[in-house]
Amino acid sequence: MNKTFEKLTPWLDKAYALNCALLLFEWDDATEAPEESGELTSKAVEILSNEYYEAIINDDVKKLLKQLSKETDLNLKEKAIVKDLQKQYDSMEPIPQKEYQAYRGLIARASSIWAKAKNANDYSQFAPTLEKIIEYQKKFVDYRLKAGKLKVKPYDLLLDDFEEGFNMEKLDKFFDTLKKEIVPLLQMVTSKNDKINKDYNYRSYPIELQKEFNHGLAEHVGFDFKRGVIKESAHPFTTNLHNKDVRITTHYDEHNLESAIFSTIHESGHAMYELQISDDLTATPAGTGVSMGMHEGQSRLFENNFGRSHEFWMPLFQKLKDTYPDALKDMDLDHFILGINKSAPSLIRTESDELTYSLHIMVRYEVEKLIFENKISIDELPEAWNKKYEEYLGVTPENDAEGVLQDIHWATGSFGYFPSYALGNAIAAQIHAHLKTVMPLDKHLKDGDFQPINTYLKEHIHCFGKTKTTNEILKDMMGEEFNPQYYIDYLKNKYNTLYKDL
Amino acid sequence: MNKTFEKLTPWLDKAYALNCALLLFEWDDATEAPEESGELTSKAVEILSNEYYEAIINDDVKKLLKQLSKETDLNLKEKAIVKDLQKQYDSMEPIPQKEYQAYRGLIARASSIWAKAKNANDYSQFAPTLEKIIEYQKKFVDYRLKAGKLKVKPYDLLLDDFEEGFNMEKLDKFFDTLKKEIVPLLQMVTSKNDKINKDYNYRSYPIELQKEFNHGLAEHVGFDFKRGVIKESAHPFTTNLHNKDVRITTHYDEHNLESAIFSTIHESGHAMYELQISDDLTATPAGTGVSMGMHEGQSRLFENNFGRSHEFWMPLFQKLKDTYPDALKDMDLDHFILGINKSAPSLIRTESDELTYSLHIMVRYEVEKLIFENKISIDELPEAWNKKYEEYLGVTPENDAEGVLQDIHWATGSFGYFPSYALGNAIAAQIHAHLKTVMPLDKHLKDGDFQPINTYLKEHIHCFGKTKTTNEILKDMMGEEFNPQYYIDYLKNKYNTLYKDL
Repeated sequence: MNKTFEKLTPWLDKAYALNCALLLFEWDDATEAPEESGELTSKAVEILSNEYYEAIINDDVKKLLKQLSKETDLNLKEKAIVKDLQKQYDSMEPIPQKEYQAYRGLIARASSIWAKAKNANDYSQFAPTLEKIIEYQKKFVDYRLKAGKLKVKPYDLLLDDFEEGFNMEKLDKFFDTLKKEIVPLLQMVTSKNDKINKDYNYRSYPIELQKEFNHGLAEHVGFDFKRGVIKESAHPFTTNLHNKDVRITTHYDEHNLESAIFSTIHESGHAMYELQISDDLTATPAGTGVSMGMHEGQSRLFENNFGRSHEFWMPLFQKLKDTYPDALKDMDLDHFILGINKSAPSLIRTESDELTYSLHIMVRYEVEKLIFENKISIDELPEAWNKKYEEYLGVTPENDAEGVLQDIHWATGSFGYFPSYALGNAIAAQIHAHLKTVMPLDKHLKDGDFQPINTYLKEHIHCFGKTKTTNEILKDMMGEEFNPQYYIDYLKNKYNTLYKDL
Repeated sequence: MNKTFEKLTPWLDKAYALNCALLLFEWDDATEAPEESGELTSKAVEILSNEYYEAIINDDVKKLLKQLSKETDLNLKEKAIVKDLQKQYDSMEPIPQKEYQAYRGLIARASSIWAKAKNANDYSQFAPTLEKIIEYQKKFVDYRLKAGKLKVKPYDLLLDDFEEGFNMEKLDKFFDTLKKEIVPLLQMVTSKNDKINKDYNYRSYPIELQKEFNHGLAEHVGFDFKRGVIKESAHPFTTNLHNKDVRITTHYDEHNLESAIFSTIHESGHAMYELQISDDLTATPAGTGVSMGMHEGQSRLFENNFGRSHEFWMPLFQKLKDTYPDALKDMDLDHFILGINKSAPSLIRTESDELTYSLHIMVRYEVEKLIFENKISIDELPEAWNKKYEEYLGVTPENDAEGVLQDIHWATGSFGYFPSYALGNAIAAQIHAHLKTVMPLDKHLKDGDFQPINTYLKEHIHCFGKTKTTNEILKDMMGEEFNPQYYIDYLKNKYNTLYKDL
């Protein structure tokens, strides 16, 4: 180990321990903490967040990072950790600690204010909080741009936080292509989708049976219960303390068969990434997925490219029917595959299908651009949102709960995050195309044999943690950086084939 | 707030937050963490424990405590916090931090070594670890005695840690009286206990039904699910982050009806104490039960004095029968009350009945005395243990798993803790006797109305947290300090009445 790097160890250890605690509190809050515990527990969480901040942002670490920037013998792991720390440092250090703390306090309260506003279907209840969050975000970006003497646009800085190397120029192109290709495809699909009867999906599926089936499903795709937990929460998510403790949640709805199924497969995809990080990297800042986009690349690969394919369901469909013999007695596999791939423009992102999903993201991306280019006021957001839904998806929200209030992200201060979802879809399609060239992928899916798939993903993507960028991973694996054409081809091919005989 | 005391606030806040995190990790480890997570998670826990240590043991706090010892205008809360902090300080500060850390590391590993040795029924696997733990304990006591220039015996210092004001002199008297009174009573009871058929208890009680019944039972005695959680673990316990988040576990055995029932009531008693701590004290070092003995006083009061009474089961017995109509179809309430109070000498403390329980404690107390008076070697412990079981209970362990290896306490470094269990039984009997003089207790139990009982306990015991000692609480409530005669009278009266007509 590099001698200077070694001096970082106590700080890294402290940050690791505090981060584990913060993640456990987050998990507990979503899955188990009693209703009235919030206020006193969040006091503890606030203090620990502050300790975490101080473990990274302090004069000792600052000096060490300066020294380390000149070291030439760092290994890949050390380099990745220094890079990640420097990135966190650059993004946090220019922000006065008092302001950061006030912002954290605001964020700690914002989610419940948002939830209440959404329940009450009243944007005005959330608007003042949202305005403050955006003010802080703009101020923080400004601090960072000045401190780093950076010549990039404010929103580009936020985009880069979530997906290094991606900016508005690239994303504009990406979304323009998508729009051009998806909108006509969607018209074709929409004109035919009343041919697919999906009533079966909304019959009664007892939750206890769903639990059993979904646990089996997670296991089927490789989730290791010795190193993982599945539980329930209002909104499914994945969290990981380290590569021996990766947890996912799902959400059961008695009258929606596929809701839990696809969130289980989705979160299992995230989980496989974190479970397969190398032992050498886990419990360090480099020991987690490299970016949001690459993470969504894994979850979407599992959920859509694998999970909505005919091959995937061949070894599972009979088990599904046996689990719900009454509700599914008239179903055959072909009908089920059409059902789980039925596409139709809708209002809610999380319920949207594979084809329309990226259009939902496009709306958010464009609204966020307007926000950070100071071209829109808080009061104008709902209308802008609704107009874009009308334009891209042909549907108009009837109220704010199904419009601008639908996502929690802004309440958590996550601006620049949404595009990662669309990038994830494209990355998944690119990996999927590649897998087909290096292994008999469809045969493995038909056999229900995820072992060779997961091993390949581990060795070419997962194990590296943050020691490679998204583009480096793709390039090293398949000789080509990020290329959204795979996604377009995948969607065209998939929907043209599926809807051909309808 | 006192100005000097105010300066303690950041340290208290930090200790509170870290303590919450450590308790949550402990809860998670016992109830949910995946099997293989232990090693990496315990690294985080070790770091946080160390942070907790440093939040309390540091030069700033040391100076503040010195100043505070001279302040005359501290309020009761401030006094209690300063006292508690000073106590922690006195017990930790004399111990070199390196040794303390090494000890914490040893303790972190010891429980699993103990568990393996117990499973393998092989004391020799645990003996070397136990020897090290005892060496540390003796060394630490020695440091503390020297630092405080204290003229007390080593084991008395440990006893005082768990129950202020109690020492070997007092406990010897207490246990001598118990022995004199309980042993003859036990002989009477043993001669008759084949008259009580308890086969019903070991029929099949499906765990899902048990869960439902036990949740209802916790609610019945006042457990508030808005501020609490019930889950399962191998060994039932209670933990609390603060008075709005109190969690209990129970353990279900399909073929033992009463096992979960009485552990649920027991832990609910602990939980009521923590739930009813005053809002003004919670989330501070004074905001938890005053001592182990007083805590066991609450859990035993609920479990035994209330929970094994005829009155308690009057509003519940039909519900119990309805829950298990087949298994309990031939049972009536009188038979059930005899069954849950059947007493017989046995080998395992946690499975022992109300009458023999304190004899199990006596064995441990006397063995611990031998250890800290250096009158016994590690190798001699199993034999000494077995001999005392033979002497007091008339039964001899056939192996170490049901002998000296049965309890986890020594693996966690808890020496001097066991006597609190017996004190708890006596305190429970004393509170029980008092309650009967201030309210129609039996009527409340018959009505299933815990509200007046819990309100009384809140106002006279629970709300005070650590602002009063055990003896102060008893004295203020009933004009009398700890008096074990209530316990003797309770047992005599109970068993003479129960067994009278057998």
